Amino acid sequence: MRVLSAAARDTYRRAGCSIDGEVVRFDPELVQSLIASAPAEFVLRARNPARDLRLGGRHVVFSSVGGPAFMSDRHGGRRSGTRAELCDFLRLVHSLPIVHQEGGGAFEALDLPAETRHLDLCLDTIRLTDRNWQATALGRRRAADCIDMAAIALGTDRAGLAERPALLAIVNTNSPLTLDVPMAEGLMELAGAGQAVCVTPFTLAGAMAPATLAGALTLQNAEVLAGVCLTQIVRPGAPVMYGSFTSNVDMRSGSPAFGTPEYMKAAQAGGQLARRYRLPYRSSNATSANTVDAQAAYESVLSLWGAVMGGANLVYHAAGWLEGGLTACFEKAVVDAEVLQTLAEWMQPIVTDDDALGLDAIAAVGHGGHFFGSPHTLARYEHAFYEPLVSDRRNFETWVEAGRPDTAERAAGVWSELLARYEQPPLDPAVEAALIDHVERRKRAIAEEDG
Amino acid sequence: MRVLSAAARDTYRRAGCSIDGEVVRFDPELVQSLIASAPAEFVLRARNPARDLRLGGRHVVFSSVGGPAFMSDRHGGRRSGTRAELCDFLRLVHSLPIVHQEGGGAFEALDLPAETRHLDLCLDTIRLTDRNWQATALGRRRAADCIDMAAIALGTDRAGLAERPALLAIVNTNSPLTLDVPMAEGLMELAGAGQAVCVTPFTLAGAMAPATLAGALTLQNAEVLAGVCLTQIVRPGAPVMYGSFTSNVDMRSGSPAFGTPEYMKAAQAGGQLARRYRLPYRSSNATSANTVDAQAAYESVLSLWGAVMGGANLVYHAAGWLEGGLTACFEKAVVDAEVLQTLAEWMQPIVTDDDALGLDAIAAVGHGGHFFGSPHTLARYEHAFYEPLVSDRRNFETWVEAGRPDTAERAAGVWSELLARYEQPPLDPAVEAALIDHVERRKRAIAEEDG
Repeated sequence: MRVLSAAARDTYRRAGCSIDGEVVRFDPELVQSLIASAPAEFVLRARNPARDLRLGGRHVVFSSVGGPAFMSDRHGGRRSGTRAELCDFLRLVHSLPIVHQEGGGAFEALDLPAETRHLDLCLDTIRLTDRNWQATALGRRRAADCIDMAAIALGTDRAGLAERPALLAIVNTNSPLTLDVPMAEGLMELAGAGQAVCVTPFTLAGAMAPATLAGALTLQNAEVLAGVCLTQIVRPGAPVMYGSFTSNVDMRSGSPAFGTPEYMKAAQAGGQLARRYRLPYRSSNATSANTVDAQAAYESVLSLWGAVMGGANLVYHAAGWLEGGLTACFEKAVVDAEVLQTLAEWMQPIVTDDDALGLDAIAAVGHGGHFFGSPHTLARYEHAFYEPLVSDRRNFETWVEAGRPDTAERAAGVWSELLARYEQPPLDPAVEAALIDHVERRKRAIAEEDG
Repeated sequence: MRVLSAAARDTYRRAGCSIDGEVVRFDPELVQSLIASAPAEFVLRARNPARDLRLGGRHVVFSSVGGPAFMSDRHGGRRSGTRAELCDFLRLVHSLPIVHQEGGGAFEALDLPAETRHLDLCLDTIRLTDRNWQATALGRRRAADCIDMAAIALGTDRAGLAERPALLAIVNTNSPLTLDVPMAEGLMELAGAGQAVCVTPFTLAGAMAPATLAGALTLQNAEVLAGVCLTQIVRPGAPVMYGSFTSNVDMRSGSPAFGTPEYMKAAQAGGQLARRYRLPYRSSNATSANTVDAQAAYESVLSLWGAVMGGANLVYHAAGWLEGGLTACFEKAVVDAEVLQTLAEWMQPIVTDDDALGLDAIAAVGHGGHFFGSPHTLARYEHAFYEPLVSDRRNFETWVEAGRPDTAERAAGVWSELLARYEQPPLDPAVEAALIDHVERRKRAIAEEDG
């Protein structure tokens, strides 16, 4: 592994890795012994304790999209986003109960300066939702700010936060086989503070990885293990996840493809690898589609099929990802939420007690009757079945009379209504003041540092 | 079970069932002993022997949509269909290699008289595709015509067809607990001729079945077993499938819902029941959506998720179903084919030999390089990954320049091109003449009978 951060190379050296220029080499037994200290399962705190997250085992956490450059909605199309629009996306995430975790910033708020944008994002996130939220690992300074603000938000300090962690950040390696300075130093800052890191190579088969699944997964595995080792050298027992983001390029255009058979297989094989090392596993809900159409939906559900059947403990980008991750889309978030809710309900076991079996009701209705008005049905009328968020089950004629709204159009109505009904969760005014004070102080400090 | 056909009741009586008016009662041990003679797996012949189908075990067959009243395409919208349009749909089915079986008539050709429509459909199907095709079980007369024409098409007679069956027909019970005359008599005709029947109750929870999954599955199971018993009384060893079509109503509107969590669970539980009885299992690809949008896609993939993970050996309506089964849609068939192809490719194991692992290629590319031009990639350039049918992976700008075509619009282009390139598979002129002769003779006979 080529490690561009001298501090990270020093850390690897201390643990017994051999260093050759920027290249770090790992003894297999050392890797095994380092990985062994990572927990198989851990809990991340949320502002609302009822929304604490358990990562690992048979649990699955759905996280909203993070990282796109652009945003889109049906009103204004695809564009650069602002802080106000990002706040609306945070409100939408908070309004969708199936989104368990905010994904670390749905898109870039380009009306804010790049160097201090993370401070405003962190403040807005803590204000607008009481869910758990992701930190950024992009450099030591940004990661440290996220940690300090999480401690303030949760009424604790760095020691308390290390004991009961709250933050998770994605660390992407630069495939093939490179770990850059910001990611390495962000990783070390977070792991050092006892916060969780998810090491995720973007091993796109045919581009940054071999054009075979076995080759891309081999590369992915080496890079994940290198990152996991670094967390455990910095702080044995620090929570860390095995992240898989292996997909393939389109061989005609060279562009990334998602929801492909290769993606599904890689998501499942990635889960097998993670379980081999007893690490919680991260996968994603991804699509290449440029708009919220059939392709966006089938690629997303196929991605989720691979992720969920692969035993993902964290499904990142679960709500709102579009256009190969270049865009966070409001309507897509609603459509994704419908699918995620369906999956959550599907995971509940079938009730099979005598009452549910309904032999008496079947006998009472008899041959050729119907169950609409049966007491067995009436007793369950309200909660018998999953009630959809955006799916339209009107018959064709009624749907035509309504103006033939497609799913994307209906989703625009759903999120507009959710935002209209949104209520900001309470936040202790003293905590909010402390957060604002931190943001202002740090902005001044960054301005001075950057001079 | 209320059995409206006197001939069917007589058949049940002969086997030892007790009859009370129209109601047939089954001794559990008798049911077990009858079911035991049904094969766990069977083969259906196609005109093209390379397209013979194996039903059972770990095999999965994708069948095109069958039974809708209407058709739709992007050019003319949703409407009643004609024979010419149905022929186009048959050509499309033949042009999509992933559709393993024609589904017994995608929609009604309303320019043909109802009483003899099955003869023209059967002739068109045999002419336009060399795939296996489904028969109709709607009455003894229609089923017999299907059998006779299959024998002619395959150059055999009824005895030869019984030895090596070709036909499968869906038999729907009238839930709850009723088997009507046409279905019972169609079933007996087909089973008597050694052809396959798939007994499928439409147990819609909250309407024709209890508003619980356990209740709906209980009812489904009783009705399937009643039908399976009838096939085995008529001809022990006749091929028969366990069909599941349990879903739920929308409790607000009373309309059927598909791709729901309840549907997914029922599809999987149905598979468990089928395996309990060692019967091949049928499920479906269904959606309530009125147009080829995100909902159509996510409900379909979620249905397929339940069906495929439920171990379905036959996925009926796999390509082309829309609007709760009221419409067969050309664009939907293309979108479905993309998903089916993805699933077929996903089912192939990951190659993990030394060459695929690519350790040498990873070493040669080194740190921070790329695999685009690597010999390991170039050697696999053409067939490394699944190549899509309708998915669009162009970047946003290129897609905007192309006029922002959504998936449905692109699918219209795909099927138009497939039809333009369609080549009719060869058919022995003597066989075709014999088929035409049968059709004409039977049309005259039906006209006289109906007189």
